[in-house]
Amino acid sequence: MKSDLSWIAALSCLALVAPAHAQFAKPEDAVKYRKNSLFVMQQHWARVGAMAQGRVPFDAKAAQDNMEVVSTLAKLPWTAFGEGTDKGETRAKPEIWKESAKFKEAADKFQAEVVKLNAAAKTGNLDNLKAAFGSAAPTCKACHDNFRKD
Amino acid sequence: MKSDLSWIAALSCLALVAPAHAQFAKPEDAVKYRKNSLFVMQQHWARVGAMAQGRVPFDAKAAQDNMEVVSTLAKLPWTAFGEGTDKGETRAKPEIWKESAKFKEAADKFQAEVVKLNAAAKTGNLDNLKAAFGSAAPTCKACHDNFRKD
Repeated sequence: MKSDLSWIAALSCLALVAPAHAQFAKPEDAVKYRKNSLFVMQQHWARVGAMAQGRVPFDAKAAQDNMEVVSTLAKLPWTAFGEGTDKGETRAKPEIWKESAKFKEAADKFQAEVVKLNAAAKTGNLDNLKAAFGSAAPTCKACHDNFRKD
Repeated sequence: MKSDLSWIAALSCLALVAPAHAQFAKPEDAVKYRKNSLFVMQQHWARVGAMAQGRVPFDAKAAQDNMEVVSTLAKLPWTAFGEGTDKGETRAKPEIWKESAKFKEAADKFQAEVVKLNAAAKTGNLDNLKAAFGSAAPTCKACHDNFRKD
């Protein structure tokens, strides 16, 4: 009976895990995917930041468009930190896997700020954008400081 | 008078061109940006393709979610083929700049197919997805064959 239950447990576990594993053909693809999605996001993020920080003139439409892209991309990298993706060409710190709850918390915090910043961009008001950007930016930095090698 | 007009023309031209140039800090960033956005898009595209081609079970929600990401990413790479981005770590063929109208046509064709495939995914019907995927896939290949080195 015990072995039967273990077998069922093993099977159901496999069923739960399989789709996540199946997302990437190999660990290198996961590493590349998260780096690439973060880079593209950062490019659009920087365009919003330049407006929020007054380095380029405010363009409400551009801010909204860039935040739409950031919103889509902000959801992506996190599935690509699975087991076996701590090696290779990555600056990911071991803490990502050792303190996975903390990492998840940091990623969730960032994503919540992106939702707010996206809403602020939609108002078309620069002061709203500045305020939301000021609140969101430290959540990038916090994650980089704690979970990314220099 | 002539020189005055040229001066005005030059200035207005600069104003028009500046935002596009300003999108990337340096040509290498543009190259990285287009490669990265294409890679992330391809990953999600492949997940839809696997369902359309019957290699993994059809999951209507997953197809829709993946096509949402593809739809956002499909719009991005094209701004990153500006002047001076034909060098460095890129497989982009010179034809992209020599036959820019043809390249634009190919990119537009692909994007139009993505719109249709996204609509098909939203219907939640596998036959619709298969048909739209079958029509869309050759537009990836056509662009790769003509504008990307092996």
